Amino acid sequence: MTVALYLPLEDKTQWWVDMLAEMLPGWTVKALDAVTDPAEVEYAVVWRPRTGDIAKFPNLKAVVSIGAGIDHVLADSELPEGVPIIRTVGDDLTQRMREYVALHVLRHHRDMPRQLQAQAEKDWHAIVVPVAPNRTVGVMGLGNLGAAAAQTLSALGFNTRGWSKSPKDIAGVETFAGPEGMDAFLDGCEILVNLLPLTEQTTGILNAELFGKLAEGACLINCARGPHLVDADLLEALESGQIKQATLDVFHIEPLPAEHQFWDHPAITVTPHVASQIDAVTGGRIIAANLKTFEETGTCADLADAKRGY
Amino acid sequence: MTVALYLPLEDKTQWWVDMLAEMLPGWTVKALDAVTDPAEVEYAVVWRPRTGDIAKFPNLKAVVSIGAGIDHVLADSELPEGVPIIRTVGDDLTQRMREYVALHVLRHHRDMPRQLQAQAEKDWHAIVVPVAPNRTVGVMGLGNLGAAAAQTLSALGFNTRGWSKSPKDIAGVETFAGPEGMDAFLDGCEILVNLLPLTEQTTGILNAELFGKLAEGACLINCARGPHLVDADLLEALESGQIKQATLDVFHIEPLPAEHQFWDHPAITVTPHVASQIDAVTGGRIIAANLKTFEETGTCADLADAKRGY
Ligand SMILES: NC(=O)c1ccc[n+]([C@@H]2O[C@H](COP(=O)([O-])OP(=O)(O)OC[C@H]3O[C@@H](n4cnc5c(N)ncnc54)[C@H](OP(=O)(O)O)[C@@H]3O)[C@@H](O)[C@H]2O)c1
Ligand SMILES: NC(=O)c1ccc[n+]([C@@H]2O[C@H](COP(=O)([O-])OP(=O)(O)OC[C@H]3O[C@@H](n4cnc5c(N)ncnc54)[C@H](OP(=O)(O)O)[C@@H]3O)[C@@H](O)[C@H]2O)c1
Repeated sequence: MTVALYLPLEDKTQWWVDMLAEMLPGWTVKALDAVTDPAEVEYAVVWRPRTGDIAKFPNLKAVVSIGAGIDHVLADSELPEGVPIIRTVGDDLTQRMREYVALHVLRHHRDMPRQLQAQAEKDWHAIVVPVAPNRTVGVMGLGNLGAAAAQTLSALGFNTRGWSKSPKDIAGVETFAGPEGMDAFLDGCEILVNLLPLTEQTTGILNAELFGKLAEGACLINCARGPHLVDADLLEALESGQIKQATLDVFHIEPLPAEHQFWDHPAITVTPHVASQIDAVTGGRIIAANLKTFEETGTCADLADAKRGY
Repeated sequence: MTVALYLPLEDKTQWWVDMLAEMLPGWTVKALDAVTDPAEVEYAVVWRPRTGDIAKFPNLKAVVSIGAGIDHVLADSELPEGVPIIRTVGDDLTQRMREYVALHVLRHHRDMPRQLQAQAEKDWHAIVVPVAPNRTVGVMGLGNLGAAAAQTLSALGFNTRGWSKSPKDIAGVETFAGPEGMDAFLDGCEILVNLLPLTEQTTGILNAELFGKLAEGACLINCARGPHLVDADLLEALESGQIKQATLDVFHIEPLPAEHQFWDHPAITVTPHVASQIDAVTGGRIIAANLKTFEETGTCADLADAKRGY
């Protein structure tokens, strides 16, 4: 079996090739750009492939996304139709996302940005906030990551809601589903966490209309994908006070360009797509295991659904 | 029954007097400084009483501390020996402390101070940290607050340790007890949370010797009492790198004086004794209930032990 690997970061490519080769004894692993005979490639392991990268291989059995999302694979307009796409998920990814969501919800809940401002002014100013059970937080997307994040927030004591496409039953979380459940989900929500996959339906979902349905002065945490957010609408909502603070981990263009207004906006915390970066070795092990399973059985548990978009 | 109330903040005193009066129908509640006949006072409800405030009352049945700690009551050198001291604890206080500890442990774990610095420099710099199960955190004090904090950290996924005077058994927490268990508790600890009561044995416990036993570059969170910490030792440990960052909620003198070095130290986060401020109305209800119980039964569950010091 031959695997072609593509990462936008050239300097990490060889390291990944060597790691996967070691984890897949008997398989051949090559950098995608080093492949001379496209016909021999049966699997492509990729993060943000370029247009046409995958279509090159006539005998491809599956594409592996190095990450939970498959939007970066589907973004390739020449992606061969029907090719199976395997996501990379697991405990490490889920754990890191739980930490990120808990940290940033608590930061906004306890108004750390303002508390740090008070420190900068040597101002002994106690910011009094409601206790977590009196704070309503909402998680959009209740998949691997969203469900775990919602449960973590509930365990921390927050009044927790969740929203997904199909109805869900999660202990300690008030759940809502579909477009018909959206307004009730948003109504009164004080801290909103986005963990949706990026699809046609969810692109631009974090917009002025949605912000207007939240509690006034709500906080926003986007740790899914940049294009979920309409940047200009957020700037306006921060200006009007409809949104008080935002924490953004993902952006339309990454790295976030130096001239982007988000960098030094006083009400925006920027983190560089670190909410949940799977540990490379852990990720490699999961990918190797999924490739072996797929090769043996023709399927695997982490198969995404290209038609549905996630 | 007559209750005398003392708070260092004069402007809040009348509000508290009125609230407690409403919650204790049939009782008389007065500001301590407005008492004309000391013999009529049977209960004193206080926060940081002045020396001699309590000794004034010959018929005192009990003192109520508006807070979990009783160190501020015991600090009164004229406190009548043997007078029962009732603490003010409860779900609200515990919940707020859980939030504070989770927030600040996560902040240090994910190195938010450095991440915010990167944002200030418009530097797309991903800070890679271990996943929580590979991070060892320790909680000193496993009482009402410490035990809840340790369980919360364990539920968030941290490798969690706890230390107390007598041995404890807490699910998900590796426990250590007494002076003989201290070195093993500290060894390898990367984030240390102090939730001890302030007593003779614990005053100055956060000192150079203790810092030297932690993992190099450990972080410190003090949310118990200012005098637990030897300020100069912390400054030195930050200088040497033995301690990387600290979050301090409590200080030798509060409000922290404007000239104190902690205010603008780049590695110190200062919060103004807000880790867990009980909601005044919730606190009032707990105090009123404890007073009624004590009056009826001569004891109550939240009785502290003045001899032991907490
Ligand atoms: N920032 C980071 O570091 C980072 C790291 C990893 C992942 N992510 C992002 O996180 C996303 C979520 O990951 P995951 O593994 O949790 O995804 P997942 O398991 O595929 O779950 C997606 C969830 O979103 C719901 N959903 C999808 N479309 C919807 C719609 N139109 N309306 C309402 N709900 C909808 C799904 O509902 P159903 O359950 O009903 O299908 C499901 O609950 C990824 O796609 C990725 O973009 C970010
Ligand atoms: N910053 C804030 O906003 C805030 C708010 C509330 C409280 N506090 C502080 O938090 C402290 C803890 O409150 P709490 O209600 O959890 O107290 P608690 O229920 O009295 O528990 C105290 C714990 O510390 C342990 N301990 C006492 N002396 C010790 C020693 N010499 N060595 C080892 N362990 C020792 C005790 O061990 P045993 O269980 O064996 O007795 C117990 O586990 C309060 O005293 C107060 O100073 C701060």
